[in-house]
Amino acid sequence: MENSCRIAVLVSGRGSNLMAIIDAAERGEIRSKIELVISDNKEAYALTRAKEHGIRTLFIDPKEFKTREDYDRQIVKHLKEHQIELVCLAGYMLLVTPYFVQEYKNRIMNIHPALLPAFPGLDVQRKAIEYGVKVTGCTVHFVDEGCDTGPIIIQRAVPVLEDDTPETLSARILKEEHNIYKEAIRLFEEGRLVVEGRRVRIKSGRNEDLSLKID
Amino acid sequence: MENSCRIAVLVSGRGSNLMAIIDAAERGEIRSKIELVISDNKEAYALTRAKEHGIRTLFIDPKEFKTREDYDRQIVKHLKEHQIELVCLAGYMLLVTPYFVQEYKNRIMNIHPALLPAFPGLDVQRKAIEYGVKVTGCTVHFVDEGCDTGPIIIQRAVPVLEDDTPETLSARILKEEHNIYKEAIRLFEEGRLVVEGRRVRIKSGRNEDLSLKID
Repeated sequence: MENSCRIAVLVSGRGSNLMAIIDAAERGEIRSKIELVISDNKEAYALTRAKEHGIRTLFIDPKEFKTREDYDRQIVKHLKEHQIELVCLAGYMLLVTPYFVQEYKNRIMNIHPALLPAFPGLDVQRKAIEYGVKVTGCTVHFVDEGCDTGPIIIQRAVPVLEDDTPETLSARILKEEHNIYKEAIRLFEEGRLVVEGRRVRIKSGRNEDLSLKID
Repeated sequence: MENSCRIAVLVSGRGSNLMAIIDAAERGEIRSKIELVISDNKEAYALTRAKEHGIRTLFIDPKEFKTREDYDRQIVKHLKEHQIELVCLAGYMLLVTPYFVQEYKNRIMNIHPALLPAFPGLDVQRKAIEYGVKVTGCTVHFVDEGCDTGPIIIQRAVPVLEDDTPETLSARILKEEHNIYKEAIRLFEEGRLVVEGRRVRIKSGRNEDLSLKID
């Protein structure tokens, strides 16, 4: 991969994590390039943002496909046409099918706004507040056949404060999401992520002791 | 409570968290006093430690009671005789019965070596490593009728490092357990813990902004 790879980002909404990846690429914090942004939602603001940064976008309408796997076959077809090496889900609301997972085994990443395995699924910042946790966070993981169950690449803790609403907590977590997503992509492009069963081992880089960076 | 209360600690094993509480009391970091240490295990090293510090100890043999509730009635009888206001579980291996929970509603604390609701139960440091999480931690919570499900008082995140074994991870978590257990007792004795449904609100202290202390 020569420390760089061709990325596709799958989005459904406003694309705040897409923007964080675009920014990281434009600032040179990651070497990889976003070749393609695909959405299941024609109105996704993320598509507008991608276009503004000169990135090719594609809306693929789920309604035009009989099954979820047919839909994913169409996506994978485009990914292969563009020689995509890493797929980043960023607020993508569809579950990827086992077919897609197998085609891009350990090459699909997702970001989740909780410290998995706590609070999988949707609306998790609200669930964390309602449960009464004092610490939550975010997780970048490889996508497997389950929902938010794949091997974990990076996690970061975020405090829940006394007066947090789902909105204030989400905003605090989102800042860390942006940090760890680009960090995970950088580790991927440097070939430093080794998946062993459920665990992701992170090989040391040339000039750093990564253990100091994981918190 | 005049910023001090009478504590009983329930133990089954070596009593490392008991020692942390004893140390905190001897150093004046908490004002409460441990009046009584009770164990279901005659051989618990925690009993020896308590005696060395002049604390009254009691071994109550579960085998002498027909039911778990009968056992807990005996414990509660002793707690009341000693006017105990706060019960701290510290490596206590028995689940407390609903009777006990009701008698000491929101006055029984437990410490758990994971960030609940992730990894309840036993041997959780090993489970965290096997799951592949990058962040785990510890939780002080009030005890309710479930197993590790009660309202959370304090949590602290602890990183999982590349080469961690259950032993090295447990040791790193244990340090934080000692910190947050005494912190939780201090908040309790200062009357600053307000249980609202599942959530524990922490009232601000006189000279500090506690939100800065929760991480």
